Amino acid sequence: MSMISFAVIGHCATTDSGFTLNDMPGSAGRMDLLARCVAASLLLSHGCRKDAECRLVLCGGPDGPKTVLFRGAQVRSLSPDERSAGALIKKALSIPCGDRYREWGPGVYIRRGGLSALLAEMPHAVLDEKGPDLSLSGSMPPAFLLSDHLDFTQDEEALLTGLPRFSIGPLIIQADQAIAVTHNILDRKEAGWE
Amino acid sequence: MSMISFAVIGHCATTDSGFTLNDMPGSAGRMDLLARCVAASLLLSHGCRKDAECRLVLCGGPDGPKTVLFRGAQVRSLSPDERSAGALIKKALSIPCGDRYREWGPGVYIRRGGLSALLAEMPHAVLDEKGPDLSLSGSMPPAFLLSDHLDFTQDEEALLTGLPRFSIGPLIIQADQAIAVTHNILDRKEAGWE
Repeated sequence: MSMISFAVIGHCATTDSGFTLNDMPGSAGRMDLLARCVAASLLLSHGCRKDAECRLVLCGGPDGPKTVLFRGAQVRSLSPDERSAGALIKKALSIPCGDRYREWGPGVYIRRGGLSALLAEMPHAVLDEKGPDLSLSGSMPPAFLLSDHLDFTQDEEALLTGLPRFSIGPLIIQADQAIAVTHNILDRKEAGWE
Repeated sequence: MSMISFAVIGHCATTDSGFTLNDMPGSAGRMDLLARCVAASLLLSHGCRKDAECRLVLCGGPDGPKTVLFRGAQVRSLSPDERSAGALIKKALSIPCGDRYREWGPGVYIRRGGLSALLAEMPHAVLDEKGPDLSLSGSMPPAFLLSDHLDFTQDEEALLTGLPRFSIGPLIIQADQAIAVTHNILDRKEAGWE
């Protein structure tokens, strides 16, 4: 299997490790959506996609942007419920970090930096309802960038200029649903299902 | 748009309305998975699929089986996070009910009865990794049945004999991911994307 990476911009996601797992949609800044994206990126019905990674770009206060990285090949004790990934995000946020990834625990890393650092790290394609159909594309990008419930900002769009864009269906769906559909497109290609 | 319905068997999902939203994976019997299935069935990025329904078959104690029905055309105040659907499930479980659906509130219904009542209610196709590829099927079933994290039991399989079965990809994925992928296959057909 080739490596596949998803990155999600959390425009108002908190960088305060004290956020409560009981209010991820509210005071944690739609951390529920980001937690579901981790599970959608890494988890199968039973077990983990060893070839998958997920990066969450937390842009909210008090200390953003920071990026949390989950590696499917290494992560342990990740369950599909929102609180499970949410608890790992809290733990990653609780350690000091600089501009390079620091490992909090197995498969969970954190560093300072937002979208520009992400794009310097690796090339990304943008999931965008205006792009051509990914399922018809001959080559598959190694990494996909998504936004949360908000559109990319003008500043972000400026950074994304020139990147390949793909759509995955006729309707605009939730970010974690989009990750599940993208995995399915790649799984089908990889298994020769088309 | 034609109506589309998903039903999920929650083999150990509690029928006690007192379950805590803080422990849906544990003491509530994988209610987290069922809550995600409600969101995957009904929610787009912004707004609701008016043509979609979701039925949760709660088979756990103390009072199962009961079936909770969510109708996209009517439901209000459903957010994508697990606690949102979980709270509506708790409220539906809190009212007395008989063998016919009783409305708890807008778009949320409950009745007694499990898989056999569900199959008498409407015809279902089974999402099953051993079936042919749904995306290659000429006609689309109006309703799909999924299991939770457990396989169908022998008694359930006996009830499913003769029903059409379809797979949606080469890997076995989480139930809510499978619903997202199935919606994508139907959305593509409906929009003439193939």
